[in-house]
Amino acid sequence: MTFQEIITLHPHPSSLDRNALQRCIEDCLDCAASCTACADASLSESDLPMLVRCIRLNLDCADACTATGRIVTRQTAPDLRVISASIEACAAACLACAEECERHAAHHEHCRVCAAVCRRCKQTCDDLLATIG
Amino acid sequence: MTFQEIITLHPHPSSLDRNALQRCIEDCLDCAASCTACADASLSESDLPMLVRCIRLNLDCADACTATGRIVTRQTAPDLRVISASIEACAAACLACAEECERHAAHHEHCRVCAAVCRRCKQTCDDLLATIG
Amino acid sequence: MTFQEIITLHPHPSSLDRNALQRCIEDCLDCAASCTACADASLSESDLPMLVRCIRLNLDCADACTATGRIVTRQTAPDLRVISASIEACAAACLACAEECERHAAHHEHCRVCAAVCRRCKQTCDDLLATIG
Amino acid sequence: MTFQEIITLHPHPSSLDRNALQRCIEDCLDCAASCTACADASLSESDLPMLVRCIRLNLDCADACTATGRIVTRQTAPDLRVISASIEACAAACLACAEECERHAAHHEHCRVCAAVCRRCKQTCDDLLATIG
Repeated sequence: MTFQEIITLHPHPSSLDRNALQRCIEDCLDCAASCTACADASLSESDLPMLVRCIRLNLDCADACTATGRIVTRQTAPDLRVISASIEACAAACLACAEECERHAAHHEHCRVCAAVCRRCKQTCDDLLATIG
Repeated sequence: MTFQEIITLHPHPSSLDRNALQRCIEDCLDCAASCTACADASLSESDLPMLVRCIRLNLDCADACTATGRIVTRQTAPDLRVISASIEACAAACLACAEECERHAAHHEHCRVCAAVCRRCKQTCDDLLATIG
Repeated sequence: MTFQEIITLHPHPSSLDRNALQRCIEDCLDCAASCTACADASLSESDLPMLVRCIRLNLDCADACTATGRIVTRQTAPDLRVISASIEACAAACLACAEECERHAAHHEHCRVCAAVCRRCKQTCDDLLATIG
Repeated sequence: MTFQEIITLHPHPSSLDRNALQRCIEDCLDCAASCTACADASLSESDLPMLVRCIRLNLDCADACTATGRIVTRQTAPDLRVISASIEACAAACLACAEECERHAAHHEHCRVCAAVCRRCKQTCDDLLATIG
Protein backbone atom coordinates (compact mmCIF):
# COMPACT_ATOMS: atom_id res chain seq x y z
CA MET A 1 0.00 0.00 0.00
CA THR A 2 1.09 3.56 -0.70
CA PHE A 3 1.51 4.60 2.93
CA GLN A 4 4.76 2.63 3.03
CA GLU A 5 6.29 5.20 0.68
CA ILE A 6 5.35 8.01 3.06
CA ILE A 7 7.08 6.19 5.93
CA THR A 8 10.31 6.28 3.92
CA LEU A 9 9.96 10.03 3.26
CA HIS A 10 10.17 11.06 6.94
CA PRO A 11 12.81 13.82 7.27
CA HIS A 12 14.31 12.22 10.41
CA PRO A 13 13.52 8.48 10.36
CA SER A 14 13.46 6.67 13.68
CA SER A 15 16.32 4.36 14.55
CA LEU A 16 14.05 1.32 14.47
CA ASP A 17 14.80 -1.34 11.86
CA ARG A 18 13.06 -0.10 8.71
CA ASN A 19 11.95 -3.49 7.37
CA ALA A 20 10.69 -4.76 10.72
CA LEU A 21 8.86 -1.47 11.24
CA GLN A 22 7.12 -1.48 7.90
CA ARG A 23 6.03 -5.09 8.21
CA CYS A 24 4.64 -4.39 11.67
CA ILE A 25 2.56 -1.44 10.47
CA GLU A 26 1.20 -3.39 7.51
CA ASP A 27 0.40 -6.48 9.59
CA CYS A 28 -1.33 -4.36 12.24
CA LEU A 29 -3.55 -2.78 9.57
CA ASP A 30 -4.33 -6.14 7.98
CA CYS A 31 -5.02 -7.76 11.35
CA ALA A 32 -7.28 -4.91 12.50
CA ALA A 33 -9.34 -5.18 9.31
CA SER A 34 -9.35 -8.99 9.42
CA CYS A 35 -10.60 -9.07 13.00
CA THR A 36 -13.30 -6.49 12.26
CA ALA A 37 -14.42 -8.64 9.31
CA CYS A 38 -14.23 -11.92 11.27
CA ALA A 39 -16.30 -10.51 14.15
CA ASP A 40 -18.88 -9.31 11.63
CA ALA A 41 -18.98 -12.63 9.75
CA SER A 42 -19.35 -14.47 13.07
CA LEU A 43 -22.35 -12.28 13.95
CA SER A 44 -24.10 -13.73 10.88
CA GLU A 45 -23.32 -17.39 11.56
CA SER A 46 -26.07 -19.80 12.61
CA ASP A 47 -23.92 -21.07 15.50
CA LEU A 48 -23.45 -17.55 16.81
CA PRO A 49 -23.67 -18.53 20.50
CA MET A 50 -20.53 -20.67 20.03
CA LEU A 51 -18.66 -17.65 18.66
CA VAL A 52 -19.17 -15.17 21.49
CA ARG A 53 -15.60 -15.37 22.82
CA CYS A 54 -14.27 -15.23 19.26
CA ILE A 55 -16.18 -11.99 18.59
CA ARG A 56 -15.05 -10.42 21.85
CA LEU A 57 -11.38 -11.19 21.17
CA ASN A 58 -11.75 -10.06 17.54
CA LEU A 59 -12.98 -6.69 18.79
CA ASP A 60 -10.14 -6.39 21.31
CA CYS A 61 -7.57 -7.36 18.69
CA ALA A 62 -8.93 -4.85 16.17
CA ASP A 63 -8.65 -2.09 18.77
CA ALA A 64 -5.15 -3.08 19.89
CA CYS A 65 -3.89 -3.39 16.30
CA THR A 66 -5.39 -0.04 15.26
CA ALA A 67 -3.74 1.79 18.17
CA THR A 68 -0.40 0.03 17.77
CA GLY A 69 -0.38 0.55 14.01
CA ARG A 70 -0.78 4.30 14.58
CA ILE A 71 1.83 4.49 17.35
CA VAL A 72 4.43 2.50 15.42
CA THR A 73 3.83 4.64 12.33
CA ARG A 74 5.05 7.75 14.17
CA GLN A 75 8.82 8.28 13.92
CA THR A 76 9.08 11.79 15.40
CA ALA A 77 10.62 11.94 18.90
CA PRO A 78 9.80 8.33 19.82
CA ASP A 79 9.58 7.00 23.38
CA LEU A 80 10.73 3.38 23.25
CA ARG A 81 8.93 2.40 26.46
CA VAL A 82 5.63 3.49 24.93
CA ILE A 83 6.34 1.75 21.64
CA SER A 84 7.48 -1.50 23.26
CA ALA A 85 4.51 -1.68 25.64
CA SER A 86 2.10 -1.02 22.79
CA ILE A 87 3.63 -3.75 20.63
CA GLU A 88 3.50 -6.16 23.57
CA ALA A 89 -0.19 -5.41 24.10
CA CYS A 90 -0.81 -5.96 20.40
CA ALA A 91 1.06 -9.27 20.44
CA ALA A 92 -0.99 -10.44 23.44
CA ALA A 93 -4.26 -9.57 21.70
CA CYS A 94 -3.15 -11.27 18.48
CA LEU A 95 -2.14 -14.45 20.32
CA ALA A 96 -5.40 -14.72 22.27
CA CYS A 97 -7.47 -14.05 19.15
CA ALA A 98 -5.47 -16.55 17.07
CA GLU A 99 -5.95 -19.29 19.69
CA GLU A 100 -9.70 -18.70 19.86
CA CYS A 101 -10.16 -18.42 16.07
CA GLU A 102 -8.26 -21.70 15.65
CA ARG A 103 -10.89 -23.47 17.77
CA HIS A 104 -13.44 -22.57 15.06
CA ALA A 105 -11.20 -22.95 12.01
CA ALA A 106 -12.63 -26.31 11.00
CA HIS A 107 -16.16 -24.90 10.81
CA HIS A 108 -15.57 -21.36 9.63
CA GLU A 109 -13.15 -20.38 6.89
CA HIS A 110 -13.11 -16.76 8.08
CA CYS A 111 -11.85 -17.91 11.48
CA ARG A 112 -9.16 -20.05 9.84
CA VAL A 113 -7.90 -17.17 7.73
CA CYS A 114 -8.19 -14.66 10.59
CA ALA A 115 -6.19 -16.95 12.89
CA ALA A 116 -3.36 -17.01 10.33
CA VAL A 117 -3.36 -13.22 10.08
CA CYS A 118 -3.28 -12.91 13.88
CA ARG A 119 -0.40 -15.43 14.13
CA ARG A 120 1.57 -13.50 11.52
CA CYS A 121 0.96 -10.15 13.24
CA LYS A 122 2.00 -11.66 16.59
CA GLN A 123 5.26 -12.85 14.99
CA THR A 124 5.90 -9.50 13.31
CA CYS A 125 5.36 -7.72 16.63
CA ASP A 126 7.82 -10.10 18.31
CA ASP A 127 10.34 -9.49 15.51
CA LEU A 128 10.12 -5.72 15.89
CA LEU A 129 10.41 -6.01 19.68
CA ALA A 130 13.56 -8.11 19.22
CA THR A 131 15.17 -5.30 17.22
CA ILE A 132 14.36 -2.81 19.99
CA GLY A 133 16.07 -4.99 22.58
CA MET B 1 -3.94 -7.75 2.07
CA THR B 2 -5.43 -10.89 3.56
CA PHE B 3 -8.47 -9.21 5.11
CA GLN B 4 -9.98 -9.01 1.62
CA GLU B 5 -10.35 -12.79 1.67
CA ILE B 6 -12.29 -12.66 4.94
CA ILE B 7 -14.69 -10.12 3.43
CA THR B 8 -15.54 -12.66 0.73
CA LEU B 9 -16.19 -15.40 3.33
CA HIS B 10 -19.11 -13.62 5.01
CA PRO B 11 -22.03 -16.08 5.24
CA HIS B 12 -24.55 -13.42 4.11
CA PRO B 13 -22.70 -10.79 2.06
CA SER B 14 -24.23 -7.34 1.88
CA SER B 15 -25.92 -6.27 -1.35
CA LEU B 16 -23.28 -3.58 -1.94
CA ASP B 17 -21.13 -3.93 -5.05
CA ARG B 18 -18.31 -6.26 -4.02
CA ASN B 19 -15.53 -4.61 -6.01
CA ALA B 20 -16.46 -1.08 -5.01
CA LEU B 21 -16.74 -2.19 -1.39
CA GLN B 22 -13.35 -3.86 -1.26
CA ARG B 23 -11.58 -0.96 -2.92
CA CYS B 24 -13.21 1.43 -0.46
CA ILE B 25 -12.07 -0.56 2.57
CA GLU B 26 -8.51 -0.86 1.24
CA ASP B 27 -8.28 2.82 0.30
CA CYS B 28 -9.64 3.87 3.71
CA LEU B 29 -6.95 1.81 5.44
CA ASP B 30 -4.20 3.15 3.17
CA CYS B 31 -5.42 6.74 3.55
CA ALA B 32 -5.68 6.48 7.35
CA ALA B 33 -2.10 5.19 7.55
CA SER B 34 -0.85 7.70 4.98
CA CYS B 35 -2.37 10.64 6.86
CA THR B 36 -0.97 9.41 10.18
CA ALA B 37 2.48 9.16 8.56
CA CYS B 38 2.18 12.54 6.79
CA ALA B 39 1.16 14.32 10.01
CA ASP B 40 4.13 12.74 11.76
CA ALA B 41 6.59 13.61 8.98
CA SER B 42 5.27 17.19 8.99
CA LEU B 43 5.92 17.43 12.74
CA SER B 44 9.63 16.87 11.97
CA GLU B 45 9.94 19.42 9.14
CA SER B 46 11.89 22.64 9.64
CA ASP B 47 8.99 24.69 8.23
CA LEU B 48 6.58 23.14 10.74
CA PRO B 49 4.62 26.39 11.32
CA MET B 50 3.59 26.34 7.63
CA LEU B 51 2.22 22.81 8.06
CA VAL B 52 -0.19 23.32 10.96
CA ARG B 53 -3.35 23.15 8.86
CA CYS B 54 -1.94 20.15 7.00
CA ILE B 55 -1.35 18.27 10.26
CA ARG B 56 -4.79 19.10 11.59
CA LEU B 57 -6.52 17.86 8.42
CA ASN B 58 -4.26 14.78 8.33
CA LEU B 59 -5.45 13.89 11.84
CA ASP B 60 -9.10 14.45 10.92
CA CYS B 61 -8.73 12.38 7.76
CA ALA B 62 -7.03 9.52 9.61
CA ASP B 63 -9.90 9.42 12.11
CA ALA B 64 -12.63 9.60 9.44
CA CYS B 65 -10.98 6.91 7.30
CA THR B 66 -10.45 4.59 10.27
CA ALA B 67 -14.11 4.83 11.31
CA THR B 68 -15.45 4.51 7.77
CA GLY B 69 -13.15 1.59 6.98
CA ARG B 70 -14.58 -0.28 9.97
CA ILE B 71 -18.21 0.60 9.23
CA VAL B 72 -17.96 -0.35 5.55
CA THR B 73 -16.26 -3.63 6.47
CA ARG B 74 -19.36 -4.78 8.34
CA GLN B 75 -21.88 -6.61 6.14
CA THR B 76 -24.25 -7.93 8.81
CA ALA B 77 -27.64 -6.17 8.96
CA PRO B 78 -26.46 -2.95 7.30
CA ASP B 79 -28.20 0.41 7.63
CA LEU B 80 -27.64 2.24 4.36
CA ARG B 81 -28.22 5.70 5.86
CA VAL B 82 -25.39 5.10 8.33
CA ILE B 83 -23.08 3.72 5.66
CA SER B 84 -23.79 6.53 3.18
CA ALA B 85 -23.33 9.29 5.75
CA SER B 86 -20.07 7.75 6.93
CA ILE B 87 -18.71 7.50 3.38
CA GLU B 88 -19.73 11.10 2.72
CA ALA B 89 -17.89 12.27 5.84
CA CYS B 90 -14.85 10.30 4.75
CA ALA B 91 -14.94 11.81 1.26
CA ALA B 92 -15.18 15.32 2.74
CA ALA B 93 -12.16 14.70 4.98
CA CYS B 94 -10.17 13.21 2.08
CA LEU B 95 -10.96 16.17 -0.19
CA ALA B 96 -9.99 18.80 2.38
CA CYS B 97 -6.78 16.96 3.25
CA ALA B 98 -5.87 16.44 -0.42
CA GLU B 99 -6.32 20.14 -1.16
CA GLU B 100 -4.14 21.21 1.76
CA CYS B 101 -1.44 18.58 1.10
CA GLU B 102 -1.28 19.74 -2.52
CA ARG B 103 -0.32 23.23 -1.34
CA HIS B 104 2.86 21.70 0.14
CA ALA B 105 3.52 19.09 -2.55
CA ALA B 106 6.32 21.05 -4.20
CA HIS B 107 8.28 21.24 -0.96
CA HIS B 108 7.43 17.94 0.73
CA GLU B 109 7.30 14.62 -1.06
CA HIS B 110 5.23 13.08 1.77
CA CYS B 111 2.55 15.72 1.18
CA ARG B 112 2.60 15.03 -2.56
CA VAL B 113 2.16 11.29 -2.07
CA CYS B 114 -0.42 11.75 0.70
CA ALA B 115 -2.47 14.09 -1.49
CA ALA B 116 -2.62 11.40 -4.17
CA VAL B 117 -3.79 8.78 -1.67
CA CYS B 118 -6.48 11.15 -0.35
CA ARG B 119 -7.66 11.95 -3.90
CA ARG B 120 -7.90 8.25 -4.69
CA CYS B 121 -9.81 7.49 -1.46
CA LYS B 122 -12.20 10.39 -2.17
CA GLN B 123 -12.88 8.93 -5.63
CA THR B 124 -13.35 5.40 -4.28
CA CYS B 125 -15.82 6.71 -1.69
CA ASP B 126 -17.74 8.54 -4.43
CA ASP B 127 -17.76 5.37 -6.54
CA LEU B 128 -19.18 3.28 -3.71
CA LEU B 129 -21.79 5.96 -2.95
CA ALA B 130 -22.85 5.91 -6.61
CA THR B 131 -23.56 2.17 -6.38
CA ILE B 132 -25.73 2.75 -3.29
CA GLY B 133 -27.81 5.37 -5.13
CA MET C 1 -14.60 15.54 32.92
CA THR C 2 -11.31 17.43 33.00
CA PHE C 3 -10.79 17.53 29.22
CA GLN C 4 -13.44 20.27 29.06
CA GLU C 5 -11.02 22.59 30.84
CA ILE C 6 -8.35 21.92 28.20
CA ILE C 7 -10.81 22.84 25.45
CA THR C 8 -11.22 26.26 27.06
CA LEU C 9 -7.44 26.79 27.22
CA HIS C 10 -6.90 26.69 23.44
CA PRO C 11 -4.84 29.77 22.43
CA HIS C 12 -7.08 30.47 19.41
CA PRO C 13 -10.52 28.95 20.06
CA SER C 14 -12.63 28.06 17.06
CA SER C 15 -15.60 30.25 16.21
CA LEU C 16 -18.04 27.43 16.97
CA ASP C 17 -20.49 27.98 19.81
CA ARG C 18 -18.55 26.98 22.93
CA ASN C 19 -21.43 25.39 24.83
CA ALA C 20 -22.75 23.43 21.86
CA LEU C 21 -19.23 22.27 21.08
CA GLN C 22 -18.49 21.04 24.58
CA ARG C 23 -21.78 19.21 24.89
CA CYS C 24 -21.16 17.52 21.54
CA ILE C 25 -17.71 16.28 22.54
CA GLU C 26 -18.98 14.96 25.87
CA ASP C 27 -22.02 13.27 24.36
CA CYS C 28 -19.88 11.66 21.65
CA LEU C 29 -17.57 10.20 24.30
CA ASP C 30 -20.48 8.98 26.42
CA CYS C 31 -22.27 7.51 23.40
CA ALA C 32 -19.13 5.74 22.12
CA ALA C 33 -18.58 4.13 25.52
CA SER C 34 -22.29 3.33 25.96
CA CYS C 35 -22.50 1.60 22.58
CA THR C 36 -19.31 -0.39 23.26
CA ALA C 37 -20.82 -1.50 26.58
CA CYS C 38 -24.26 -2.26 25.09
CA ALA C 39 -22.75 -4.37 22.29
CA ASP C 40 -20.76 -6.28 24.90
CA ALA C 41 -23.74 -6.80 27.21
CA SER C 42 -25.81 -7.98 24.25
CA LEU C 43 -23.12 -10.58 23.42
CA SER C 44 -23.80 -12.14 26.84
CA GLU C 45 -27.61 -12.21 26.59
CA SER C 46 -29.44 -15.52 26.20
CA ASP C 47 -31.49 -14.09 23.31
CA LEU C 48 -28.31 -13.09 21.46
CA PRO C 49 -29.64 -14.03 17.99
CA MET C 50 -32.35 -11.37 18.41
CA LEU C 51 -29.67 -8.73 19.12
CA VAL C 52 -27.46 -9.12 16.04
CA ARG C 53 -28.59 -5.90 14.37
CA CYS C 54 -28.35 -4.07 17.70
CA ILE C 55 -24.72 -5.18 18.13
CA ARG C 56 -23.81 -4.21 14.58
CA LEU C 57 -25.28 -0.72 14.93
CA ASN C 58 -23.70 -0.34 18.38
CA LEU C 59 -20.30 -1.02 16.82
CA ASP C 60 -20.93 1.44 13.98
CA CYS C 61 -22.14 4.09 16.42
CA ALA C 62 -19.13 3.64 18.70
CA ASP C 63 -16.79 4.11 15.71
CA ALA C 64 -18.66 7.15 14.36
CA CYS C 65 -18.84 8.82 17.80
CA THR C 66 -15.14 8.18 18.51
CA ALA C 67 -14.06 9.75 15.22
CA THR C 68 -16.46 12.69 15.49
CA GLY C 69 -15.54 13.34 19.11
CA ARG C 70 -11.88 13.65 18.07
CA ILE C 71 -12.58 15.81 15.02
CA VAL C 72 -14.87 18.19 16.91
CA THR C 73 -12.32 18.50 19.72
CA ARG C 74 -9.78 20.05 17.34
CA GLN C 75 -10.07 23.86 17.10
CA THR C 76 -6.89 24.62 15.12
CA ALA C 77 -7.48 25.65 11.48
CA PRO C 78 -10.91 24.00 11.19
CA ASP C 79 -12.55 23.01 7.89
CA LEU C 80 -16.28 23.41 8.40
CA ARG C 81 -17.19 21.02 5.58
CA VAL C 82 -15.24 18.24 7.30
CA ILE C 83 -16.71 19.03 10.69
CA SER C 84 -20.30 19.25 9.42
CA ALA C 85 -20.08 16.01 7.44
CA SER C 86 -18.59 14.20 10.42
CA ILE C 87 -21.33 15.44 12.75
CA GLU C 88 -23.97 14.40 10.21
CA ALA C 89 -22.48 10.90 9.99
CA CYS C 90 -22.47 10.70 13.77
CA ALA C 91 -26.09 11.83 13.99
CA ALA C 92 -27.11 9.18 11.43
CA ALA C 93 -25.34 6.43 13.39
CA CYS C 94 -26.88 7.61 16.67
CA LEU C 95 -30.38 7.69 15.18
CA ALA C 96 -30.15 4.20 13.67
CA CYS C 97 -28.70 2.76 16.88
CA ALA C 98 -31.32 4.47 19.04
CA GLU C 99 -34.16 3.09 16.92
CA GLU C 100 -32.80 -0.45 17.10
CA CYS C 101 -31.99 -0.30 20.82
CA GLU C 102 -35.54 0.93 21.48
CA ARG C 103 -36.91 -2.28 19.95
CA HIS C 104 -35.19 -4.19 22.77
CA ALA C 105 -35.71 -1.66 25.56
CA ALA C 106 -38.53 -3.60 27.19
CA HIS C 107 -36.36 -6.70 27.57
CA HIS C 108 -32.93 -5.24 28.17
CA GLU C 109 -32.20 -2.31 30.46
CA HIS C 110 -28.84 -1.72 28.78
CA CYS C 111 -30.62 -1.21 25.45
CA ARG C 112 -33.09 1.19 27.06
CA VAL C 113 -30.34 3.30 28.59
CA CYS C 114 -28.16 3.13 25.46
CA ALA C 115 -31.08 4.29 23.30
CA ALA C 116 -31.48 7.36 25.50
CA VAL C 117 -27.76 8.18 25.23
CA CYS C 118 -27.92 7.80 21.43
CA ARG C 119 -31.02 10.04 21.22
CA ARG C 120 -29.30 12.70 23.30
CA CYS C 121 -26.11 12.55 21.21
CA LYS C 122 -28.18 12.79 18.02
CA GLN C 123 -29.86 15.93 19.38
CA THR C 124 -26.58 17.46 20.50
CA CYS C 125 -25.12 16.86 17.04
CA ASP C 126 -28.14 18.52 15.45
CA ASP C 127 -27.81 21.47 17.84
CA LEU C 128 -24.15 21.97 16.97
CA LEU C 129 -24.92 21.68 13.24
CA ALA C 130 -27.60 24.37 13.64
CA THR C 131 -25.02 26.78 15.05
CA ILE C 132 -22.73 26.13 12.06
CA GLY C 133 -25.50 27.01 9.62
CA MET D 1 -21.46 9.85 32.41
CA THR D 2 -24.34 7.57 31.56
CA PHE D 3 -22.22 4.74 30.13
CA GLN D 4 -21.30 3.78 33.70
CA GLU D 5 -24.90 2.67 34.23
CA ILE D 6 -24.70 0.37 31.21
CA ILE D 7 -21.54 -1.24 32.61
CA THR D 8 -23.53 -2.20 35.72
CA LEU D 9 -26.33 -3.75 33.62
CA HIS D 10 -24.15 -6.46 32.04
CA PRO D 11 -25.91 -9.84 32.49
CA HIS D 12 -22.67 -11.57 33.52
CA PRO D 13 -20.29 -8.94 34.95
CA SER D 14 -16.58 -9.69 34.83
CA SER D 15 -14.81 -10.65 38.04
CA LEU D 16 -12.72 -7.47 37.95
CA ASP D 17 -13.17 -5.04 40.82
CA ARG D 18 -16.18 -2.92 39.79
CA ASN D 19 -14.97 0.38 41.22
CA ALA D 20 -11.44 0.06 39.84
CA LEU D 21 -12.87 -0.94 36.47
CA GLN D 22 -15.25 1.97 36.20
CA ARG D 23 -12.65 4.51 37.23
CA CYS D 24 -10.24 3.09 34.66
CA ILE D 25 -12.76 3.37 31.81
CA GLU D 26 -13.69 6.94 32.78
CA ASP D 27 -10.07 8.05 33.17
CA CYS D 28 -9.12 6.47 29.81
CA LEU D 29 -11.91 8.42 28.11
CA ASP D 30 -10.96 11.65 29.85
CA CYS D 31 -7.26 11.17 29.10
CA ALA D 32 -7.87 10.34 25.43
CA ALA D 33 -9.94 13.50 25.01
CA SER D 34 -7.50 15.59 27.04
CA CYS D 35 -4.52 14.46 24.97
CA THR D 36 -6.39 15.11 21.70
CA ALA D 37 -7.21 18.61 22.96
CA CYS D 38 -3.68 19.27 24.27
CA ALA D 39 -2.08 18.19 20.96
CA ASP D 40 -4.47 20.51 19.14
CA ALA D 41 -3.86 23.46 21.46
CA SER D 42 -0.11 22.90 21.11
CA LEU D 43 -0.44 23.07 17.31
CA SER D 44 -1.71 26.66 17.74
CA GLU D 45 1.01 27.86 20.13
CA SER D 46 3.63 30.36 18.97
CA ASP D 47 6.42 28.17 20.41
CA LEU D 48 5.17 25.16 18.42
CA PRO D 49 8.69 23.85 17.61
CA MET D 50 9.27 23.34 21.36
CA LEU D 51 6.13 21.22 21.60
CA VAL D 52 6.81 18.60 18.94
CA ARG D 53 7.57 15.79 21.37
CA CYS D 54 4.57 16.79 23.48
CA ILE D 55 2.26 16.55 20.45
CA ARG D 56 3.67 13.19 19.42
CA LEU D 57 3.20 11.70 22.89
CA ASN D 58 -0.27 13.27 23.16
CA LEU D 59 -1.26 11.46 19.97
CA ASP D 60 0.20 8.15 21.19
CA CYS D 61 -1.53 8.53 24.56
CA ALA D 62 -4.89 9.33 22.94
CA ASP D 63 -4.63 6.18 20.81
CA ALA D 64 -3.55 3.95 23.71
CA CYS D 65 -6.29 5.29 26.02
CA THR D 66 -8.99 4.92 23.36
CA ALA D 67 -8.07 1.28 22.70
CA THR D 68 -7.68 0.41 26.38
CA GLY D 69 -10.93 2.15 27.32
CA ARG D 70 -12.77 -0.03 24.79
CA ILE D 71 -11.03 -3.26 25.81
CA VAL D 72 -11.59 -2.71 29.53
CA THR D 73 -15.25 -1.85 28.89
CA ARG D 74 -15.89 -5.36 27.56
CA GLN D 75 -16.87 -7.86 30.26
CA THR D 76 -17.91 -10.81 28.09
CA ALA D 77 -15.47 -13.76 28.07
CA PRO D 78 -12.43 -11.71 29.12
CA ASP D 79 -8.82 -12.77 28.53
CA LEU D 80 -6.81 -11.38 31.42
CA ARG D 81 -3.50 -11.45 29.52
CA VAL D 82 -4.98 -9.18 26.87
CA ILE D 83 -6.53 -6.86 29.42
CA SER D 84 -3.38 -6.63 31.56
CA ALA D 85 -1.08 -5.98 28.59
CA SER D 86 -3.43 -3.29 27.28
CA ILE D 87 -3.58 -1.53 30.65
CA GLU D 88 0.22 -1.69 30.92
CA ALA D 89 0.58 -0.11 27.47
CA CYS D 90 -1.86 2.60 28.49
CA ALA D 91 0.02 3.29 31.72
CA ALA D 92 3.30 3.57 29.80
CA ALA D 93 1.78 6.06 27.36
CA CYS D 94 0.21 8.10 30.18
CA LEU D 95 3.51 8.25 32.10
CA ALA D 96 5.56 9.37 29.10
CA CYS D 97 2.97 11.98 28.13
CA ALA D 98 2.68 13.28 31.71
CA GLU D 99 6.45 13.68 31.98
CA GLU D 100 6.66 15.61 28.72
CA CYS D 101 3.60 17.78 29.42
CA GLU D 102 5.09 18.67 32.82
CA ARG D 103 8.13 20.16 31.08
CA HIS D 104 5.78 22.72 29.48
CA ALA D 105 3.41 23.19 32.40
CA ALA D 106 4.86 26.54 33.44
CA HIS D 107 4.25 28.04 30.01
CA HIS D 108 1.07 26.30 28.89
CA GLU D 109 -1.93 25.75 31.12
CA HIS D 110 -3.28 23.03 28.80
CA CYS D 111 -0.07 21.06 29.31
CA ARG D 112 -0.32 21.48 33.08
CA VAL D 113 -3.90 20.22 33.16
CA CYS D 114 -3.20 17.42 30.66
CA ALA D 115 -0.23 16.22 32.71
CA ALA D 116 -2.49 15.90 35.75
CA VAL D 117 -5.07 13.89 33.78
CA CYS D 118 -2.31 11.59 32.46
CA ARG D 119 -0.89 11.09 35.98
CA ARG D 120 -4.34 10.21 37.29
CA CYS D 121 -5.02 7.77 34.44
CA LYS D 122 -1.60 6.15 34.99
CA GLN D 123 -2.48 5.65 38.67
CA THR D 124 -5.93 4.30 37.89
CA CYS D 125 -4.41 1.81 35.44
CA ASP D 126 -1.92 0.70 38.10
CA ASP D 127 -4.75 0.33 40.62
CA LEU D 128 -6.77 -1.86 38.27
CA LEU D 129 -3.70 -3.95 37.45
CA ALA D 130 -3.11 -4.48 41.17
CA THR D 131 -6.61 -5.97 41.55
CA ILE D 132 -5.91 -8.38 38.68
CA GLY D 133 -2.72 -9.60 40.34
